[in-house]
Amino acid sequence: MSDMTQAIPDIPGLPLPLSGETRLHVIIGDPIAQAGSPRLFNQAFRRRGAGAVLVPLHVRSEHLSQALAALRHFGNVDGIVVTVPHKIAVMELIDEVRDSGRRIGAVNAIRRLPDGRLVGDNFDGKGCIRGLSAAGHGIQGKSVLIVGGGGAGRAVAHAMADEGPSRLRLFDIDSTRQAELVASLAQAHPGLVVEVGAADPQGFDVVVNCTPLGMQASDPYPVDPERISPSALVVDVILKPAISPLLEAAAKRGCATQPGIRMLEGQVEAICDFFGVGMPA
Amino acid sequence: MSDMTQAIPDIPGLPLPLSGETRLHVIIGDPIAQAGSPRLFNQAFRRRGAGAVLVPLHVRSEHLSQALAALRHFGNVDGIVVTVPHKIAVMELIDEVRDSGRRIGAVNAIRRLPDGRLVGDNFDGKGCIRGLSAAGHGIQGKSVLIVGGGGAGRAVAHAMADEGPSRLRLFDIDSTRQAELVASLAQAHPGLVVEVGAADPQGFDVVVNCTPLGMQASDPYPVDPERISPSALVVDVILKPAISPLLEAAAKRGCATQPGIRMLEGQVEAICDFFGVGMPA
Repeated sequence: MSDMTQAIPDIPGLPLPLSGETRLHVIIGDPIAQAGSPRLFNQAFRRRGAGAVLVPLHVRSEHLSQALAALRHFGNVDGIVVTVPHKIAVMELIDEVRDSGRRIGAVNAIRRLPDGRLVGDNFDGKGCIRGLSAAGHGIQGKSVLIVGGGGAGRAVAHAMADEGPSRLRLFDIDSTRQAELVASLAQAHPGLVVEVGAADPQGFDVVVNCTPLGMQASDPYPVDPERISPSALVVDVILKPAISPLLEAAAKRGCATQPGIRMLEGQVEAICDFFGVGMPA
Repeated sequence: MSDMTQAIPDIPGLPLPLSGETRLHVIIGDPIAQAGSPRLFNQAFRRRGAGAVLVPLHVRSEHLSQALAALRHFGNVDGIVVTVPHKIAVMELIDEVRDSGRRIGAVNAIRRLPDGRLVGDNFDGKGCIRGLSAAGHGIQGKSVLIVGGGGAGRAVAHAMADEGPSRLRLFDIDSTRQAELVASLAQAHPGLVVEVGAADPQGFDVVVNCTPLGMQASDPYPVDPERISPSALVVDVILKPAISPLLEAAAKRGCATQPGIRMLEGQVEAICDFFGVGMPA
């Protein structure tokens, strides 16, 4: 980096200066105006000192196939972040879907290889693990309770299962969804102890909320904070409020906590690695 | 603009911070790494306070048609700058080519309308006029000598003809090319006095070099500087060196001069207007 670029303030969304050599990344979605990725990724690219930018690309579902076909041939494109409504539809249009994407049934990042091949994966769960690692927290050998088996719950459950916990309990209010996730986990992680049971945090080393409970002021807690061990780590996927009522209560009990933003930041870093941003070509 | 964005230094290539709402512009070419447009346009966008960015897009000729078809449907794309080798080929692939593009036989900027229609034009000549206007120079009623009838010469000749000079003399070492340009000018500007003749600047109010002469240290002058009137305006399209030997000699005689960079800057501004950058939607 030159002296000039070192003078660039650390503002979300601000990349390093662009040139003809800049490597290009896009986020595709419909709508796209609300997307937070341009802010997060350009900040991450700049911190990596990468001559790279991520721009929003407004792609409607009826043009998704055409868009991916074109992106495949843009020689300076390295990565595609995928947001609603395309996370499932892209799976049929790319060349390879990696493990996490297949298990979760959705892809949120696609790497474009130099030969134009498109490889997709899902980083929701990896982002959670990466956020925990950055704060010094590991999952290996720990007992884990995950409440909520929707998209976030599936992603986090599979990612935590990859880390080798002593046991993993799942709770979802929808027993069918709960059973499906347990079956999927058992298949992907043959040695893992998976249990279904009450959303009772007592005795668990790690407690994770993957439900939306806590976004509304009137929501009940997803688990009873009084029954969380003070030595437990409590993780929430909720982004708004930044500190959920569950995390607030857990912190008061002395628990270590991880708010949703850490999972999002971890995901941005994991996707930057996947795209090869700031790494030797 | 917020206080934060006011702190962004005026570095070429640096846009305002990107978000999901950022309007997207691209430059297509092959190769693309050498393109100066990302530096120039992003600086211009920022000066206009526009939430817009221009990024390089490496498009090979065999994928040009597919690329334009896709760009048509990217809902937040407003403009496409076109560089070699696509300036002629795009003409067949877009919906409308405006006057300057048709006359010059090449398109270097395409506006994407909200309905996906693509409208192209050529801004080489308009850039020259705009650079002159910015410095207070007009062409109306002036006698003009243009030396060189290649791409730049054709563009500048047509743009100056639009301004209503008293007469326009063209010189090209290739008499066929010279005759073709004269015919094209006569057709496009029925009332214009166009002449062919020697590259002798004596008696001309405006003298324009549109040849590459002056890029190499060993080049002869395109016209004899000793025969330029000290009251004349001398224009050069050459970008390197920034001040050509012709302009240096003319300035010594007391002439007003315009170097190639002013034409390029004028073109960037004209294209920004064409794309609607920083204007109400």
